[in-house]
Amino acid sequence: MNRFWSPAIQSLEPYTPGEQPRIEGLTKLNTNENPYPPSPAVTDALKHFSTERLRLYPDPNASRLKDALALEFDLTQEQVFVGNGSDEVLALAFMAFFRQPRPLLMPEISYSFYDVYANLFDIDFRKLPLDDQFRIRLSDYPVDNGGIIFANPNAPTGIAVGLEEIEALLKRNTDSLVLVDEAYIDFGGESAKALIASYPNLLVVQTFSKSRSLAGLRIGFAFGHPELIDALERVKNSFNSYPLDMLAIEAACASLTDRQYFTRTCEQIIETRDRSAKRLEELGFSVLPSSTNFIFARHRQLGGAELMSYLRERKILVRHFNKPAIADFLRISIGTDEEMKRLVSALETHPDISHTT
Amino acid sequence: MNRFWSPAIQSLEPYTPGEQPRIEGLTKLNTNENPYPPSPAVTDALKHFSTERLRLYPDPNASRLKDALALEFDLTQEQVFVGNGSDEVLALAFMAFFRQPRPLLMPEISYSFYDVYANLFDIDFRKLPLDDQFRIRLSDYPVDNGGIIFANPNAPTGIAVGLEEIEALLKRNTDSLVLVDEAYIDFGGESAKALIASYPNLLVVQTFSKSRSLAGLRIGFAFGHPELIDALERVKNSFNSYPLDMLAIEAACASLTDRQYFTRTCEQIIETRDRSAKRLEELGFSVLPSSTNFIFARHRQLGGAELMSYLRERKILVRHFNKPAIADFLRISIGTDEEMKRLVSALETHPDISHTT
Repeated sequence: MNRFWSPAIQSLEPYTPGEQPRIEGLTKLNTNENPYPPSPAVTDALKHFSTERLRLYPDPNASRLKDALALEFDLTQEQVFVGNGSDEVLALAFMAFFRQPRPLLMPEISYSFYDVYANLFDIDFRKLPLDDQFRIRLSDYPVDNGGIIFANPNAPTGIAVGLEEIEALLKRNTDSLVLVDEAYIDFGGESAKALIASYPNLLVVQTFSKSRSLAGLRIGFAFGHPELIDALERVKNSFNSYPLDMLAIEAACASLTDRQYFTRTCEQIIETRDRSAKRLEELGFSVLPSSTNFIFARHRQLGGAELMSYLRERKILVRHFNKPAIADFLRISIGTDEEMKRLVSALETHPDISHTT
Repeated sequence: MNRFWSPAIQSLEPYTPGEQPRIEGLTKLNTNENPYPPSPAVTDALKHFSTERLRLYPDPNASRLKDALALEFDLTQEQVFVGNGSDEVLALAFMAFFRQPRPLLMPEISYSFYDVYANLFDIDFRKLPLDDQFRIRLSDYPVDNGGIIFANPNAPTGIAVGLEEIEALLKRNTDSLVLVDEAYIDFGGESAKALIASYPNLLVVQTFSKSRSLAGLRIGFAFGHPELIDALERVKNSFNSYPLDMLAIEAACASLTDRQYFTRTCEQIIETRDRSAKRLEELGFSVLPSSTNFIFARHRQLGGAELMSYLRERKILVRHFNKPAIADFLRISIGTDEEMKRLVSALETHPDISHTT
């Protein structure tokens, strides 16, 4: 502890993102990136962008992008918020909604950044267990809370909850905000966007990082009642006026014009995922039912940490979480068919796996 | 107040950035943007960037940029922090250092975002008056404080304090952090960077938005003792892992390679500024001595709000702050020679100004 630090800094336990090593010939299946490049419309838009404009500040409101999102999702600009990746949108939402006298509720296993935000903003929280099949049980969430947050589909399990369950929660939980983090929604879940017109306490957060192949540009967004969006704007404009830069706005708008590419690449990833899951099951893994661009799987004999190291030695990167409940699992991002074949081949040559198949 | 908001949100008074209207033929002298485009090295780097890479996350640590800054400023990577514009760097610094039991000190007239951050993070603060020539008087700052922040050169006055005064403050004020916000330093001030090796409680914040013509890309940075940088990293990694996107990192690194262009455009702006200040004085303005890329001036007869409207009708945008102590002033960003001529011509045709010259 340095004496110039704010006292609260000492106890922070920052989030650890998956590593981004620069190793030649690496098969990188550890950070849920899209294996396909962004739409050619993005390349075009960036190629035609005049860098002279960069001397000017961007539009602090990113109105062009809000309008494009409103059009694509059949909303008004007042129902849309945008930020520097969904991580920033979530951070601002924690400040805007969850600094409450009662504790925030979240699933025991979910995106591990939620605890980090809560600690940063000194928010009391309570974690609710998943069921024995690693599913979120929204019916367990008591209404006496300062807010509810969960990822749908959940991470790192990959399992989605249905819209009826979310609506049942919203009907019951009318006194606090419900935040549904839909980073992976385009790979198989049903978006709660359909419910925002009916429930003024529902905030839905999405990102361009996964299904739109724009992780490198940091673009996240949220949908909700205009009064919720207003709260996010107030916090954002008290923190950083221009979180989205000109090129990010440009690329995001271009990406939204190419719905066909978006649909095709999402479908391709879903196909590869389902084929890969089947193959892993044949190799002795049990695979949780995924609605995302990753699979969460454990081998019947081999530990998660051990398998991760084994794959890493073969230049294949997957993610392992060192938490008791999920320590047996690997989170494997869906790559191209070629990359998934490399993964399967590496596993097939493991002495304890080849013997079991 | 919406019942889903965090209680503290109600009382926020967000920062208002200068407007970014899209009006054809506008002379835009209201947001201190650089009138010159970024270095051709930036255009080159962005042209050769392969958009396929955007599917991947950026390096969360932006090491390439930290290394480039360390090299340019003769520091080590451990003394460098980078963020999404200096606004984000400042916001993170408020969290990291200024949440203290004692009040933060700042000049009565300075960058108006400082109060906003303090309110957002519930930080008690005290404002110290400028002297009768609008200069910051660091010798007035009592040592019993939870931190000190000021802009050098100050905004919107444009006046710089010397390095000796800053060092005298640091010698005296050894128990709390001193943050020097050097957004405009390259237009005439002396950077306190020279002092960071000797004072472990000094943080210096700079930006690519002004002197490097990259406002559109949102790149800010800070220099300080490694333990201060560590605090910033902890807060950043508890808020948003990847605030700087790939293209921003690319452009910032490219910009640093072209020192000649940087020096030439800064010199050009200083020349235009000094010539413009002289011309405004001939038109009956008193102009504060500027070390920035703007001038802060008041007319001997005409009010600031009135002059701002008059210029706006002639499609020239300047900034006016509706605060009692500086309501007579206009803040005029330095444009090209051509733009400044347009400003002077418009003022010359004002009936009350032409009569007085």
